[in-house]
Amino acid sequence: MSCVSKVMGMAVVFSCLLGSFFGVALAAEVSGDTETCIGCHSMVTPGIVADWQNSRHAKVSPAEGLQKEKIARRISAEKVPGELAETVVGCAECHMLDADKHPGSFEHNGFTIHTVVSPADCATCHPTEVTEYADNLMAQAYASLVNNPTYAHMIKSTNGMHEYADGMMTFHGSDPLTEADSCLSCHGTDVKVGELVTRETAMGEMEFPTLSNWPNIGVGRLNPDGSVGSCSSCHMRHQFSIEVARKPYTCAQCHKGPDVPASKVYAVSVHGNIQKSSDKDWNYKEVPWTVGKDFNAPTCATCHASEVVDENGEVLAKRTHRFNDRLPWRIFGLPYAHPHPIAADTSNIVNKAGLHFPTELTGEPVSKFLIDQAEMDKRQATMEAVCSGCHSEQWVKGHFTKFDKVIETTNHMTLQATKIVAQAWEEGLAEGLPQGKNPVNEAIELKWVEQWLFFGNSTRFATAMGGTDYGVFANGRWYQAKNLQEMHDYLKFLRATKPPVK
Amino acid sequence: MSCVSKVMGMAVVFSCLLGSFFGVALAAEVSGDTETCIGCHSMVTPGIVADWQNSRHAKVSPAEGLQKEKIARRISAEKVPGELAETVVGCAECHMLDADKHPGSFEHNGFTIHTVVSPADCATCHPTEVTEYADNLMAQAYASLVNNPTYAHMIKSTNGMHEYADGMMTFHGSDPLTEADSCLSCHGTDVKVGELVTRETAMGEMEFPTLSNWPNIGVGRLNPDGSVGSCSSCHMRHQFSIEVARKPYTCAQCHKGPDVPASKVYAVSVHGNIQKSSDKDWNYKEVPWTVGKDFNAPTCATCHASEVVDENGEVLAKRTHRFNDRLPWRIFGLPYAHPHPIAADTSNIVNKAGLHFPTELTGEPVSKFLIDQAEMDKRQATMEAVCSGCHSEQWVKGHFTKFDKVIETTNHMTLQATKIVAQAWEEGLAEGLPQGKNPVNEAIELKWVEQWLFFGNSTRFATAMGGTDYGVFANGRWYQAKNLQEMHDYLKFLRATKPPVK
Amino acid sequence: MSCVSKVMGMAVVFSCLLGSFFGVALAAEVSGDTETCIGCHSMVTPGIVADWQNSRHAKVSPAEGLQKEKIARRISAEKVPGELAETVVGCAECHMLDADKHPGSFEHNGFTIHTVVSPADCATCHPTEVTEYADNLMAQAYASLVNNPTYAHMIKSTNGMHEYADGMMTFHGSDPLTEADSCLSCHGTDVKVGELVTRETAMGEMEFPTLSNWPNIGVGRLNPDGSVGSCSSCHMRHQFSIEVARKPYTCAQCHKGPDVPASKVYAVSVHGNIQKSSDKDWNYKEVPWTVGKDFNAPTCATCHASEVVDENGEVLAKRTHRFNDRLPWRIFGLPYAHPHPIAADTSNIVNKAGLHFPTELTGEPVSKFLIDQAEMDKRQATMEAVCSGCHSEQWVKGHFTKFDKVIETTNHMTLQATKIVAQAWEEGLAEGLPQGKNPVNEAIELKWVEQWLFFGNSTRFATAMGGTDYGVFANGRWYQAKNLQEMHDYLKFLRATKPPVK
Repeated sequence: MSCVSKVMGMAVVFSCLLGSFFGVALAAEVSGDTETCIGCHSMVTPGIVADWQNSRHAKVSPAEGLQKEKIARRISAEKVPGELAETVVGCAECHMLDADKHPGSFEHNGFTIHTVVSPADCATCHPTEVTEYADNLMAQAYASLVNNPTYAHMIKSTNGMHEYADGMMTFHGSDPLTEADSCLSCHGTDVKVGELVTRETAMGEMEFPTLSNWPNIGVGRLNPDGSVGSCSSCHMRHQFSIEVARKPYTCAQCHKGPDVPASKVYAVSVHGNIQKSSDKDWNYKEVPWTVGKDFNAPTCATCHASEVVDENGEVLAKRTHRFNDRLPWRIFGLPYAHPHPIAADTSNIVNKAGLHFPTELTGEPVSKFLIDQAEMDKRQATMEAVCSGCHSEQWVKGHFTKFDKVIETTNHMTLQATKIVAQAWEEGLAEGLPQGKNPVNEAIELKWVEQWLFFGNSTRFATAMGGTDYGVFANGRWYQAKNLQEMHDYLKFLRATKPPVK
Repeated sequence: MSCVSKVMGMAVVFSCLLGSFFGVALAAEVSGDTETCIGCHSMVTPGIVADWQNSRHAKVSPAEGLQKEKIARRISAEKVPGELAETVVGCAECHMLDADKHPGSFEHNGFTIHTVVSPADCATCHPTEVTEYADNLMAQAYASLVNNPTYAHMIKSTNGMHEYADGMMTFHGSDPLTEADSCLSCHGTDVKVGELVTRETAMGEMEFPTLSNWPNIGVGRLNPDGSVGSCSSCHMRHQFSIEVARKPYTCAQCHKGPDVPASKVYAVSVHGNIQKSSDKDWNYKEVPWTVGKDFNAPTCATCHASEVVDENGEVLAKRTHRFNDRLPWRIFGLPYAHPHPIAADTSNIVNKAGLHFPTELTGEPVSKFLIDQAEMDKRQATMEAVCSGCHSEQWVKGHFTKFDKVIETTNHMTLQATKIVAQAWEEGLAEGLPQGKNPVNEAIELKWVEQWLFFGNSTRFATAMGGTDYGVFANGRWYQAKNLQEMHDYLKFLRATKPPVK
Repeated sequence: MSCVSKVMGMAVVFSCLLGSFFGVALAAEVSGDTETCIGCHSMVTPGIVADWQNSRHAKVSPAEGLQKEKIARRISAEKVPGELAETVVGCAECHMLDADKHPGSFEHNGFTIHTVVSPADCATCHPTEVTEYADNLMAQAYASLVNNPTYAHMIKSTNGMHEYADGMMTFHGSDPLTEADSCLSCHGTDVKVGELVTRETAMGEMEFPTLSNWPNIGVGRLNPDGSVGSCSSCHMRHQFSIEVARKPYTCAQCHKGPDVPASKVYAVSVHGNIQKSSDKDWNYKEVPWTVGKDFNAPTCATCHASEVVDENGEVLAKRTHRFNDRLPWRIFGLPYAHPHPIAADTSNIVNKAGLHFPTELTGEPVSKFLIDQAEMDKRQATMEAVCSGCHSEQWVKGHFTKFDKVIETTNHMTLQATKIVAQAWEEGLAEGLPQGKNPVNEAIELKWVEQWLFFGNSTRFATAMGGTDYGVFANGRWYQAKNLQEMHDYLKFLRATKPPVK
């Protein structure tokens, strides 16, 4: 092994010499400001400096990036202003950018810097991505959760402190630290700048602004500069790598639990198997991304985001950071699958019963907030164009016929559970909507939530991606059926033990 | 990194020149028919064309394959007929083979092709594998499920639509789409050829035959040509790679859920740890497969399928596609672990109580359908020969002593759960066998099923492969014990709330 | 692909010639005794011989290892005695070492060997690691489990055989084989040497000593020579690789179940994502381990064990095999999170209620057995030094503020469940502590155990490492809340059906 490494090492030296000989410009320079940063930070936070040094940002200047033909560019700006274009993208280029727009800017060794680099900063070179992302449900993940009264109930019963005393359960609200650590860890926190504090550092005493609800890299984070989201949710600091974002492990950070088992389903799908089995032979870095050549099965990014082409350069799908561009249906997080919402912020969606849900409690979509059939068809066609990279039309249509069916059957099974919980409310065996109480905190109510939040979702994901057992025994149809039977019995047990409430 | 790639690229060119220089025939040619296919399909389904181009099929002709010494061959045919032998194995060689034997054959741009390439086609070059596979339980996974009346009950209560009305649960049957999407996704569907339909394609209007229950790559698929199974269940289209099939992620497609957690258990076993940790250094392609040199811990394939040799070429285990050749016990899918069935189609196995189970409800094996002790001993010895590649006899015997014990203890724990559900039936607290009703649809019955289908199985797999926690807290003994306690209480709750049915 | 391999092959030959030419000593020699072992064992257990040949042990002698500068050494001995130092570390060097100290030594083809190589043997070259490990909770994992009466109850109700008859559940004790296969598989068994038996081998009849509770590689194994632990728990036979031990899959062998979901949480953390995504580019073998250069996100080993340095050679954390050196809190396995125990053997810890728990049933720590605040602060600082490799102080402090909070909230939720189970005992709805009966075998009691053993733990791990959903829906706060609600209802169901016991 060490013999091999040695030869490889020699080869690299040789090739780099060749590179110089033929006059190839291999890298732009690091700016003076960034060099100053690195001077201290290679000692203070050496890991992220080294990490950045391995990044594309550390090797290529925006100007060089703009020399590529359009389809191969990583940056969407037509032009990058002034000096920024000429050096590589280092510490200073991001953390000192537009200081006046960042409430958290502070004096640091002669520079004015801000801690929270935001999408507004990234937009300097990547404006299309930032604009698209803002239309994304994820960009509003904070507002859509926190401002939805029904979800607020759910946050309280999940995160809040319960108290058992005198044979009774009572509920206390949750606290900001727990919420930041729980739901908002993925959804994003509201980051606010506080007072300056003095800290003892390796370089002596220094002042830093405090940040509340920090650290956080949630997808809908509210940044001090008023922007939303965090590009580093998926493009992790400080390599900000396209490779990592294209691998399925990135999405798995938030999309693996029973409420949204996308990653688990993918792992046992044919696509996921091929990805894991062939990972080391794939090229996750190429832009655009060539089906069959760079990869031979899709990852999350392939279907939902990437610019995918064939070997002739024919575009199968345009790159998008509005990840629902290829998604007609929204299949998780709500009682019933339904057409995608029109607006990213869903907190103002209300059904007839006054619940902030995009469907009635009986499943009918609240259409005025949702995309129409024409838009659904368009999105479906966009997705199918990706599938057609490898699959015949009959294969693709056959797949989506099953998908349409699973929406119908899982919605049916949610409806039955809804009828049972409604019966419990009617008889006063639990206190929920009719009583004007939290509808998602007693045991029978939590079973109702699991019917859709866990089992319905899992079944739909399994159909969507082909991870069979997640549609059967692994939180799939088996659990849908079993949960319903148990709810049915539970109602009787409650009846036998609990005097009806007036 | 790009420097390295450049040198590697040059090296490849150089080496290929060398290859020619020394007169090494590096690849056979692509047939004219296949070239015609590729002409269009590199535009229509570019991904699978490129995928195939990376396959061994695209590089080596059967005739070249036959030049290898026998133990190193990937093909088991002694002779491959006529022209087929001389070109690489492309689109035409499979999709145009024996057109008259394929009901689904249709005219396509001047060729007669069939969509569903079946094991009968693959048998042209791989007859031994196809023959062995046919004796496999997996080959009959469709029949053994669908034709077994007890399983039919389970399919209905899992996939069927439940209805809650007037305080009662009722059941509707399932539908073909849901079954294809659920159980049959792994077990295989019954694919039938329907009418020709006209479709608008990139090349103009064309006619294609419709296929029902399609797409599907289940292991026991009924193909239009009368053959069973789908080689691409494990050797995924269109690389049909031995490497992918040997990696554990392939088996995980169907063997990961709570009903058959083989993949999960393997992942936390010592073997699975070493495989994941060392994956990039292994050679998954060599035939035969040399223990210690090509790999240093077994994958699923190593123990159940592969030709395993040592560095002296000594054969530890012969290749087999009859995966129970090394398995005396069947440990999952049924209430009690039992000796393997003799025949692949198990749907005709009946016990004294009339249930289509290979054991009585009390656990005694229904011996006439099961292999005898001599056959069990033979299979055990075949498996132990694989173990002996790395382990001493005492280690191996110690391992299997625990395995014998876990069969005894998990069967005992199933028996207790069976006594409880039988008590429920006797008292009319649930309606099952004595009432001639579905024995697996009410809550207490589903808990009984989970006792063996989830918890007993998980515990046995954990012992078999050493993924400890799957035998304790992760659906193992802890759940066996807890489920039993809960069933015991549940019976009392039912008694308190449900008037006994006559 | 084959072209590339060919060139690489040529390159290796060429480079090795170069190696010889420049007089580089490439490897020490194999001892004569080891050569004799290999003579037979390359046929009898070829896999482990080949595996060892790929190890560092097979290539470097202790004397060569000692030539490295101290920080780069893999061995901690100042001096390795006599002949042992001069040859590579082969079969004989370990299996024949100090024969008289190993009760299991036996005559084998003219040599006196022992089967169970123990930490006492490894200490010849790695004394610091063995000494540190002995202070570890893991080293006493056998004693701390088996000698703790409360855990003994839990072992019995998990592993023991339950019996349902005449409407009653009764319990039988467990058996040694099941315990070895279950809890003790990770915790370690008590390995004892028995009689010599004669076995038929490929080399004729031979005598071997029998070993009870074997095979086992549990972390607290009691070895025949009186030592505890098994280095091969993490450094798997026969490569004993630092690379494998540093990968997270090794820890996952025992730390993945619902009782200790560290591995699952890590997999969905940012750190785990980067590790999986970048695995092939990391150098897991360097000693010391350079942050940013060798790896750009921590694995389990980075935070809990490894010598971590920056590119300037500055040490961020000293290597330790006492894995709680960086851990102030113990967050799993017990009802309440609490300061780490002082002694590795925790079986003698007793609270006021007579339970062998490090906290009272109400959560107050039993301080005299636990580390004090000063020691907690020291350990916290040691851990934070690792974090500071990549994170600013504010980031790190913000992280641990959430960690302090989750200890408080999960302990609160355990307390509520404890109040419910205590109520059940008080009313005689279950028989536990007040009745002097097994407190962890009835359904309501098992639900109490899951409140802390599964849900509290999972939530804390999620905060500690950032795998969000394990703190919410994946056995996290959602389950804490739901379990509590169900326990509350369960009490009422029990009351309605079970006549209070006197």
